[in-house]
This record gives sequence, C-alpha cells and structure tokens, in this order.
Amino acid sequence: MTNQSEMTNYLQTFVEGMISSGVEQAVISPGSRSTPLALLLHRQEKIETFIEVDERSAAFFALGLSKASSKPVALLCTSGTAAANYYPAICEASASHVPLIILTTDRPHELRQVGAPQAMDQFHLFQSHVKEFIEMAIPEGTNVMLDYAYWQGMRVTDTACQTPKGPIHLNFPLREPLLPDLNQSLSVERQTEIFAGQKQLSEEQLLKCVAAWQEKKGVLVVGGSHTLEEAEVFIELAETLNWPIISDPLANITSCSKDSSLIMSYADLFIQEVEMKLYPEVVVRFGMLPISKNTMLWLQSLNETTTIYFVDETGEWQDQLKQTQVAIQAEEQIFAEAITDKIKTKTSDSWRNQWVDWQETTEQQLAELSEMKTLNETTASILVHKKMAKNGQLFVSNSNAIRFLDRFTASENNHYHLFGNRGINGIDGIVSTALGMCAINPDRQNVLLIGDLAMYHDMNGLLLAKRYNLPLTIVLLNNNGGGIFSFLSQRQLRPDDFEPIFGTPIDLDFSLVAQLYGADYVKAESLEQLELVLEATQKQPKFQMIEVVGNRQENVLLYEKVISGLKEKLGKK
Amino acid sequence: MTNQSEMTNYLQTFVEGMISSGVEQAVISPGSRSTPLALLLHRQEKIETFIEVDERSAAFFALGLSKASSKPVALLCTSGTAAANYYPAICEASASHVPLIILTTDRPHELRQVGAPQAMDQFHLFQSHVKEFIEMAIPEGTNVMLDYAYWQGMRVTDTACQTPKGPIHLNFPLREPLLPDLNQSLSVERQTEIFAGQKQLSEEQLLKCVAAWQEKKGVLVVGGSHTLEEAEVFIELAETLNWPIISDPLANITSCSKDSSLIMSYADLFIQEVEMKLYPEVVVRFGMLPISKNTMLWLQSLNETTTIYFVDETGEWQDQLKQTQVAIQAEEQIFAEAITDKIKTKTSDSWRNQWVDWQETTEQQLAELSEMKTLNETTASILVHKKMAKNGQLFVSNSNAIRFLDRFTASENNHYHLFGNRGINGIDGIVSTALGMCAINPDRQNVLLIGDLAMYHDMNGLLLAKRYNLPLTIVLLNNNGGGIFSFLSQRQLRPDDFEPIFGTPIDLDFSLVAQLYGADYVKAESLEQLELVLEATQKQPKFQMIEVVGNRQENVLLYEKVISGLKEKLGKK
Repeated sequence: MTNQSEMTNYLQTFVEGMISSGVEQAVISPGSRSTPLALLLHRQEKIETFIEVDERSAAFFALGLSKASSKPVALLCTSGTAAANYYPAICEASASHVPLIILTTDRPHELRQVGAPQAMDQFHLFQSHVKEFIEMAIPEGTNVMLDYAYWQGMRVTDTACQTPKGPIHLNFPLREPLLPDLNQSLSVERQTEIFAGQKQLSEEQLLKCVAAWQEKKGVLVVGGSHTLEEAEVFIELAETLNWPIISDPLANITSCSKDSSLIMSYADLFIQEVEMKLYPEVVVRFGMLPISKNTMLWLQSLNETTTIYFVDETGEWQDQLKQTQVAIQAEEQIFAEAITDKIKTKTSDSWRNQWVDWQETTEQQLAELSEMKTLNETTASILVHKKMAKNGQLFVSNSNAIRFLDRFTASENNHYHLFGNRGINGIDGIVSTALGMCAINPDRQNVLLIGDLAMYHDMNGLLLAKRYNLPLTIVLLNNNGGGIFSFLSQRQLRPDDFEPIFGTPIDLDFSLVAQLYGADYVKAESLEQLELVLEATQKQPKFQMIEVVGNRQENVLLYEKVISGLKEKLGKK
Repeated sequence: MTNQSEMTNYLQTFVEGMISSGVEQAVISPGSRSTPLALLLHRQEKIETFIEVDERSAAFFALGLSKASSKPVALLCTSGTAAANYYPAICEASASHVPLIILTTDRPHELRQVGAPQAMDQFHLFQSHVKEFIEMAIPEGTNVMLDYAYWQGMRVTDTACQTPKGPIHLNFPLREPLLPDLNQSLSVERQTEIFAGQKQLSEEQLLKCVAAWQEKKGVLVVGGSHTLEEAEVFIELAETLNWPIISDPLANITSCSKDSSLIMSYADLFIQEVEMKLYPEVVVRFGMLPISKNTMLWLQSLNETTTIYFVDETGEWQDQLKQTQVAIQAEEQIFAEAITDKIKTKTSDSWRNQWVDWQETTEQQLAELSEMKTLNETTASILVHKKMAKNGQLFVSNSNAIRFLDRFTASENNHYHLFGNRGINGIDGIVSTALGMCAINPDRQNVLLIGDLAMYHDMNGLLLAKRYNLPLTIVLLNNNGGGIFSFLSQRQLRPDDFEPIFGTPIDLDFSLVAQLYGADYVKAESLEQLELVLEATQKQPKFQMIEVVGNRQENVLLYEKVISGLKEKLGKK
C-alpha cells in the first residue's frame, strides 16, 4: 500500500523532473482526482500557476504562454471529459510545434471499465496529436520508482522541446486518499543538464547551395511562425542575394525593425496580376506556405525552369505543392546565416527592381482609394499594425483578420512580435491563446485583432483576463458573422442558403461581454479616434475591447476594387 | 474525375441512408470543407437542421436532442480543430449510450501530411470513444459507389442505435469544387426496414430468478437513466415483490406518476445511519450505481449472505463494486415485466415496514429543520422538483445540483422527465444539452437546474436559445465557485490552498449573461417568490434565468445537521 507520504514524494519528484527540463508555468483546471498534483504545483515556488475552470480555454492559454515564452508549459486536469476539452489546443500545439506537457489524472486500474463515476478510457486520448502517450505507474515510494518519476518528468519535457516540438500526454492513475502530505519538503533537489545540438549542413552542402543560388534570379518565400531575430536574418539573406522576400504576417518580416524594399508586402494583391516575363530560376522556401492563396497559386504555376529548395528542420515534408527538388533539413536561422556569410556576389538589380516596382505600384493603388481613408475592417487592421509599440505583442485571429494584415500592411519598422494559431487555423481558443501571450509580458503593449465569431467561440477565455489582470487590448472586427465566406465560392449561393449556414449572424452586444468580464469598452467611430485609443495602449496597457463595426460585403468590394485597379496598372487584363 | 453532380448524388444518397435508419435532425457548425453536406442537410425536407458556431456546444446540443427524442442525431463540421471540439460530448455520448452520427469533412488524400491549411489527422480522432470510425471513399457517381454511400449511411445509423447505443464517426474526404448541384432532385428515394429484436431471457432463466427472489428480503437498486415508462415498471416490480426500491433522480422513479411507499427517497441520508438488523438476502441492480455515495458504501458493506443480481442489457459489466453473482443480460423493461407477471407471493410486510419507517423518520427530520423553510440552494432544488408540470422536462447539472435532488426530494406524483449527463458526470456542455432537450418539446415546461461553474463553462450554448427561441427556464444555483469540494476531503485544506484551486470563485454578474443572450432575468429573494415564478413557467414557457444566491458553507452545514439529527433518531451514534 502506498501512503500519502509516498504518493507525495513520487509526484513531487516528477514535478522536479519537469522543472529540470524547463517547466516554469502550469495551468490547472479544478477537479478532485487531480488534487495532489494541483497542490504540489500550486505550492511549488519554481512554478507559476494559473487556474481556469474551462479546460478548453486553459489549454489554449497554456499554448499562448508557451508561444510567447518559448518554454514548455504544463497543463493539469481531472479525469473524464475535462481532458477531452484540451483536444482543440493540443491539435493546434501539435501542428504549430508547441511543447505542452499534458497531465491528466485517472482512476486506478481497479476502477476502470467498471462504471466508476467520472471515469473513461484516457489511454491515447489525443491519438496522433501528441508526440508520446505515457501511462504513469501508480505512485510508489521506492528509490527505483522515485528515479522513474523524476526521469519521466525530465525526459518528456525535454522530448516535447526537441524538434519538431510538440505536446506530450501523461496519464496519472491516483488512488484515494487524494490529499498529499504538504508538510514534506517541496524544494527542488534534482537537476539534469542538457546540451542540445542542432541540425546543421556540412561545408560541402552549404557550398552547393551557394553555387546554385549566387547571381541567380531567386525568390525567398518564408512562411510559418518566426521570431523577430529569425525574421531579421531572413531579410539579411534576401539583401545579400538581392532577392525579393515573400512572407506573411506570422513570419514577422514586416514587423521586425529591419526594413528593406525587398520585403514584398502586398504580394497577395499583385502576384496574380503582373506580367511575369522572367520566372525565377530558384525559389527557396522556409517553413510552411505563406497564407496568401494567390502566392500559392503563383508558386504552383512555376515550371521546371525553377528549382525549388525547401528548408525545413523538422523533416516533415510539409510541402503541399509537392514541388521540392532540394530538401534542406537544417535549423533555419543557422542555415540562413551560414549562407549569408558565403554569398560573395549579388543578383543583378534588374531582377530586384521589377519586384520593387510591382510593390510600389500596389502601394500607390492603395493610396488612391478613398476606402483606405475611412474606418472599416481593413483600415482598422492596418492601423493596429501601424500603432504597435516597440516590443509590443500582437495576436491575430484566423479567417479574415490575418488576411487583412497580410494583404494590406507593409513594413513600419516598429519591431513588435506578431503571433497567431496557424497550425490548423481554427477560430477556436484565440482569446485564451492571446491572453497566454499577454501573461508573459503584461507590461508591454498587448493587442488581439479578432473577428466576432472567434470572439464568441472563446468568450470564456476572458475570465483569465479578469482573474489575472491581464491588460489585453482587444480590437474586435464585428461584421456579425462569418466574413470569410463572402470571399469564397459559397458567396454564389442564394441568400436563404448562405445566411443561415455561412453568414451565421450572432447579433451579440459585445459591450455587455466587456462589462461581464470587467473590460473597458469603446466603439470606434473613426480612424482618428481608433488611432488615439491605440496610441494610448502603447503607454498604458489595459484590459479593453475596441469594437469596429464592419460589413462583410464592403470587405469584398474593397478587395475587388484593389484587384481590378491593379489589373489595369500592372498590365494583365 | 468526379464532377459536382456525382459528388451531390453520392452525398445525397448517404443522407438518404441516414434518414432510412431514423435520422431526423442534424446540428451543423459552419465551415468551408463541409459545404456540400451542410447544404444537402439544410435543403433536405426530412431533416431539421440547427446551426451553432461553437462545435463543443453544437455536439452537446445534439446529445440533448437525441436524449429527449430517443432518436439518432447527425453532427457536421469542417476539417481541423472544429472536430476536436466535439470530443467532450462524444465521450459523454459513449458513456451514456447516445446514438450520434458524427460527420467530419477532410482534405482528400493528396492534401494530407503535406501541410495543407486547416488539415490534420482525423483518422480515429475520437479513439475508443466511438463505436466505429469510418473513412468514407472520395465521392464517385457509379452505381456501386452510390449503393456504398447509401449502405454506410443506413448501416452506421442503425449500428449507433443498437445496444449499447453510442456515437459513430465518419470522415469524408472532399475535393474542390465544394458547391453541390442543388438543382438535382433531393427527395428521398431509398429506404430499408429494420425489425430489431431485443435480448430476452428464456422461460427457464426467468423461473430461476422468480424462485430465488420470491418471498425473500430483497432490495431493488435502480441507477442510470430511465424513461418514465421504465420507472413505472420498476415500481410495479417493487410492489409485486414488496421490496424497497433505491434509485436516484435520473432513474425517474420519483418523477413518474406512480407513487409507492417503497420508493426510498432520502436513501443517501438514512442508509448509513440505520441499525440494519437484517441484511437483504437479495439485491437486484438495474443499470449503473445510483449517484449516492452512501448507498454505494452500504452496498459495499453487504457480505456473502446477500446475493447480488445485476441486470444490464449491454453486457458491459459496469459494476464497480465487482459484487455481481448473477449477471442478467436482457432488456431491462421486458425483463422486469416478465418477472412481475410470474411473482405469485410477496415478501412479508415486516421487511417493507422497517424501510418505510426509516424513510418517514427522515422526512420528519427534514420537516423539523428551519433551514428547509427558507430559500437556499437545497430548498430551491426541492421546489424545482415540486413545481415541475405534467410532462415537463427537467435537466439537472452535475456536482451539487443532482445531489440536492437525490438527497432531499420525494415522489410528488407529477410525472415529468428528468435528464442529466451522468455518463462521465462532467460539468461541461450542460446548457447546450438542456437546450437540445428543450428543442424536442419546446411547448412543454423545460427547466435546467445548474450551478455557476457549469453555467460559465457552457455559456456559449445560450446562443442556441437566442437563435431558436428555446423557452428554457434556467434555475441558477450561484454559490460563486466549486461547491462540491466543500463536501469532499479538500475542505480540510488551508484557505490559501483551497480557494484558488477548489473554491475558484468566478465573480460573474449573471444578469449580464441573461441580457447578452436575451433571457429574462429574476433574482429569487424568497421561496414564495421562486414558487410563483416556477408556477408561471408551467403555463407560459419562456427563456429566462432565475438566480438563487447560495453559500457553499451553508449547504454543508445543512447536510451535516440532517445527518446528525438522523444519527439520534435512527439509533446509530
């Protein structure tokens, strides 16, 4: 029989293992079976704990903490459906490579498959969406089992942090009594050091790339999430090669402080409209495809005269165009820096100049439109980007919000960090993920750009802002429904088919939502007013909601107007 | 290549298959990949569709529809994390045997494992919590494939409805273009008839039971969900045997119109306090254990002088006490009726009388307490039970709400149907499940009894009430936190450990929640006022929230006062 003291030792040693490999934060959802682990985490000085009743929001909050801190984060819940609520965030963590350590607690073996209350099969609960599933042993206090508990805590946390990073699930069968012995020492005694190597190419492999790229007409295409530091390295590489760089907001190319006319903002707008006399000889892709569908179609249109390089450390072959001819499996930043060092001569300026022309023509076209001078969802999104403070953090929601930024914003040299959930692009959990981001740097400007459906989907997450005084500024683009569908083929449908299934207006008064959770509320009436409010957030972060009332149809008309203007200006009819 | 017309035929034929086996309702969450199925379901006259943006609430709503209609219900969502949001409701459906047909849509094979947007591995997404996982073929229009589509729709729906009922998951890979051909005939042309047999004992097996039970000192223990009709059959059986019947609210024994002094309401209060001179010779259990922990402990204390029969059609051996000596694998109602017909002589009245005495003593003890005459969470729960109209529907949440009803309510002869989510007993999805129940019989009195944490957890579900004008009366027991933990061992903790992890006050003004979703709001100030409001709901159902402000500590004190009074009255010290 295991007594309270043995259980406490065993679980405490497991926690020490997690701490040794870098866990500093844990998000706990209340429950009975999880009591001993909850109390040990809560009492542990080296771990900051957050409590959230809704496990779905709790898991997305942990995702946000880990994204903004680049550290592994632990999650803890009780047995039963509680754990199933983690699933959406786990799928996103798996796809976007975020190291979450998911701790579920369970009935012990003798209470399984017998109809015990709040019990269900938790083995492999998250299927292929975790890197590992581990059923822990029933707590025992022998040295062998303490070593085992420590080892698992240390090992799984490190495994979650190895490339490709991702979530790991541990299931703890626990017997009653569930109260741990809190009089024991809970100080951390064990530690293991890890020197982690990274994938790097050999000198010979690097020189092959240099030979193939130097002086060629090339394009860098950077997708996926990148840090500001990585973004600057990519721009440096583009400048060294004299190649245009196409990316999207998540790559942080337009939000880092390095400016360059090679940064092809607006690529989504012009790339399908230009008369491309010369196709690139080389395309070098880093990470996933950028979000722009037009960029994807342009890449797809390239023929065998273009050689496609795909730099992907994970080796997961995530190239949906299946064009990769040279796969470079190496850490991206180290690789980019190594190449930059070795390139001796640039590609000719004529190659660069045509790209810069297209980009500038697009900028002029945008400047001419009266719609760009009044408040709407597009201009509000642009303004958010412009008004981000140095070292601020912006979380951008899926569907329309990120597309507005991708299509319409250029480099502002303001050096802020943009985050999103672009692993699987769900509209779920956005509020909680943004609040996790905010909790890592609450003293900075923290902004969330989000639509009304995503806001509604994760409204529960706002309780975290209320409980932990998280000063997030929410810019709510409210077009009362699913604005993205007005851009897709579904728009061809009859209104009586379209509105109930795709339009889905929800008619919520979001000022009440703000009031419910204690956020300040402002309805933006003009661009000037929005500008003032956003400027204020740079100096004085606070929990507030700024509602921008949009119109689904207007967004589409503006986009179409830009495209038709560019068709004229850029030559394609 | 499959064209739009072929895809339409294939999916339409699948829908016909589902209709043939009984699907009449579908809950759809908006998305792009699911477009053709969404439109076909929406346009299908034989299927009533509901739309809900939050897939978690959508799935629980479907669960409620199926629970109240006893029919299979289809669920549809797009690819990605959308489907993962279904998981909590699917786990509950699996454990409480509810036939949901889960349709997820997916990228086709050529867009899998390649980093395509909004794509993830959806194979066996719900692990062991569905009866089957089926990857459908890419739509094709040949006769062979139309037969296949029909057969799968018909077969899986029937399979979901076979004992033990449960959810089934079908994944549809769909290629663009995603718009179906809506000009084709969408009328239902195929149908298959099903004559479903049920497990019944042989004459010889029945006579063995009769011989073993007749004139013996026995107890019927009925747990799990039962219809009013089944409940009446169980009471008839108890009367025929002259045995007490112990159950819980979900069994609907105290809410059906058949009254009997053998119905042991209050068993949770008295069963551990009585001096039981004679242990039963026979215990016959139907379904899961009742929710009362004291009843469970009493059963556990029985020794080999008691023979335990366990009637369970599913054959799943869900007996957490592992006491079953005779397992009866037969349909419960048919079995109970057959036994009732065969019993010739009753057990002596002395056996019955001691149980009736205990029950009456408890009733007196409750009547003496002043706390039972003022408004608190306990008396509010009792009043809800008393004020349910004939054929009304009550949904009761987990944790405290169902325990208040179980401990403190007796038969009122009012014939209403009580529902709950007692498969895994989560506090998630309660609002949506109750609204699903309400949507089946919106003209009747529909009430939800729920605590504040469960209310918060599924607040999003309220959008369904707003959109579909569902006249649910919500009685909110608001003790500002996790009231159940004040009854458990966690109460021994220091306040600075208890409150943040278990107490978890959320400090929400629920009148704002009511306003947000368009519900009328009343704060109950007295029992008399609450009575009037509840009586009004019998005549005029409407969407409203009645808040009863509770106190976690008071609930415990009242319970302890009852128990200590009974200790004195019933002899155990």
